[in-house]
Amino acid sequence: MAIFLSESEVAKLIDFPTAVDVLTDAFMSQAQGTASNRPRIRIPINGGTYNLMAAANLAKNVVGLKVYTASKNGAPMLIVLHAADGTGLLAIMEGGKISGCRTGAMSGISAKYMAKSGKHVLGVIGSGFQARAQILGVLAAVSVERVVVFSRNTEKVDAFVKSMASEIQVPISAVSSTDQLCAESSVVVLITNSSEPVVLTEQIRPGTHVIAAGNNTWLRNEFEPTLAAKASIVVVDDVDQARIEAGELMRASELGLFNWDRAVSLASVVSGIRKGRTSDKDITLFSSQGIGLLDVAVATHVYGQAKEKSLGAILGA
Amino acid sequence: MAIFLSESEVAKLIDFPTAVDVLTDAFMSQAQGTASNRPRIRIPINGGTYNLMAAANLAKNVVGLKVYTASKNGAPMLIVLHAADGTGLLAIMEGGKISGCRTGAMSGISAKYMAKSGKHVLGVIGSGFQARAQILGVLAAVSVERVVVFSRNTEKVDAFVKSMASEIQVPISAVSSTDQLCAESSVVVLITNSSEPVVLTEQIRPGTHVIAAGNNTWLRNEFEPTLAAKASIVVVDDVDQARIEAGELMRASELGLFNWDRAVSLASVVSGIRKGRTSDKDITLFSSQGIGLLDVAVATHVYGQAKEKSLGAILGA
Repeated sequence: MAIFLSESEVAKLIDFPTAVDVLTDAFMSQAQGTASNRPRIRIPINGGTYNLMAAANLAKNVVGLKVYTASKNGAPMLIVLHAADGTGLLAIMEGGKISGCRTGAMSGISAKYMAKSGKHVLGVIGSGFQARAQILGVLAAVSVERVVVFSRNTEKVDAFVKSMASEIQVPISAVSSTDQLCAESSVVVLITNSSEPVVLTEQIRPGTHVIAAGNNTWLRNEFEPTLAAKASIVVVDDVDQARIEAGELMRASELGLFNWDRAVSLASVVSGIRKGRTSDKDITLFSSQGIGLLDVAVATHVYGQAKEKSLGAILGA
Repeated sequence: MAIFLSESEVAKLIDFPTAVDVLTDAFMSQAQGTASNRPRIRIPINGGTYNLMAAANLAKNVVGLKVYTASKNGAPMLIVLHAADGTGLLAIMEGGKISGCRTGAMSGISAKYMAKSGKHVLGVIGSGFQARAQILGVLAAVSVERVVVFSRNTEKVDAFVKSMASEIQVPISAVSSTDQLCAESSVVVLITNSSEPVVLTEQIRPGTHVIAAGNNTWLRNEFEPTLAAKASIVVVDDVDQARIEAGELMRASELGLFNWDRAVSLASVVSGIRKGRTSDKDITLFSSQGIGLLDVAVATHVYGQAKEKSLGAILGA
């Protein structure tokens, strides 16, 4: 019997540390060839886009998709899971919570495999609704001693820092410049919707792991193309999708600063096929677009939990 | 409030004549640029495929997809509709009835625009579960005086003819050879899962409209590649999708018998941009793969009917 789970039910069945484990497992499966991902499809709608992201996780006997419209009316998301042995629909669930959670957890995983060892200062540029998941995701994956946040909107950043301080166990504060943020941080997360770089390549210190997580369209642009040339490794969540969505890398490629042959999948790094970092002086770069495999992996975990607890509305009857 | 409709509810809300009207309207919108279709995506699963078909019908403020697994365990289908103004999920419904109905109705539409004028003898090669929808679809769109059916399995064809005779208003009988079927029929429907041609090009008389509807993978093969060369017009439901699914046309192209530049979309014919037939001697060919636009169009109609009648289970609450 297939089930339907609303956003509030989903929220009770997933947390960031679990998402880190679930996604790590999915990336291992992808590297081993039992999980696969298709680049996002976008179809124009009135004032926005219709988005489809499909993936298979045969090791879990699940195939699924996330579908959503993105427009000024928000981004209502739905995830649909079918059994990969062809026996039918498993579950339909609202996908907003899962999307935020998997994006943050993936950033955490990139830090775990690409940042220096030891305790980190996490610097976050941006204080919108996605910044929270980035902080929680990185905290769930690596050891962080404090968090610093920069946003051009100082009122917004103060409210954000105050809200986050009540939710996490490590100190968090606002900083007044990206210079200060980059000087203090060993992991820098960009989580803005900027169309101009929010950090300059010269600001990034040796040894920093940069996570560019705000973009999934080439119209946006969070770092300078020269960072792709300076980074010792450039990792993406899906190479095919990054080629059409990772605006900064697309610009860098067009300008002769980056060769797509250098793009490494996060699955290759997680599975150990490629080393995320070779020295404490490396600048490492992870460009995150968000992939269907992650939605399917987290949703599969949520589905399993819901079945175990007999949650969700039965569909079809 | 989004709704969920089960197969039995959907079945009450659609019929073949209505589907012919709904699809004609969708093809007109496609020709005018307010509706669009994406080729099917296939992802391998255990012993089968996971299939995704997306389309937008902005004239109806709907965007949607059909998703299904296809394997020895059947093809459980689901259709998901979102509002094209970004305001959210409209409906989720089981999609088996809609799929059969739209495939049959589309064949009917091809006959309406491509077959000779006047009363037809409809010849159907194949007597599987999809043959019924083909007959009902053609009967809903053009004037048919009788139906003849051929299948290699004579027991199966007798049962099929008996069952159909109780459902339609025109005579239906089995014939013992494809020679006889082609000699009698002005519209010939191929609805098999054969990997070898079920009809020879030399059997097709001048003036015949051939509908090849059984395939949607290049592994199968219902007619000879020479038919593509002999036909005065070759129409497909989606040119991009046909290029990777229409096995016979792909073979014909590979053999130099068919140029993809000759492939005409059914939308172009329905909208009058292209003539379906220029003389009573023409052999016309419609190669049907099945497209998401049709699923979305019929599902949109079903959704409207369900809302009007307050049917369906409310999702999410």
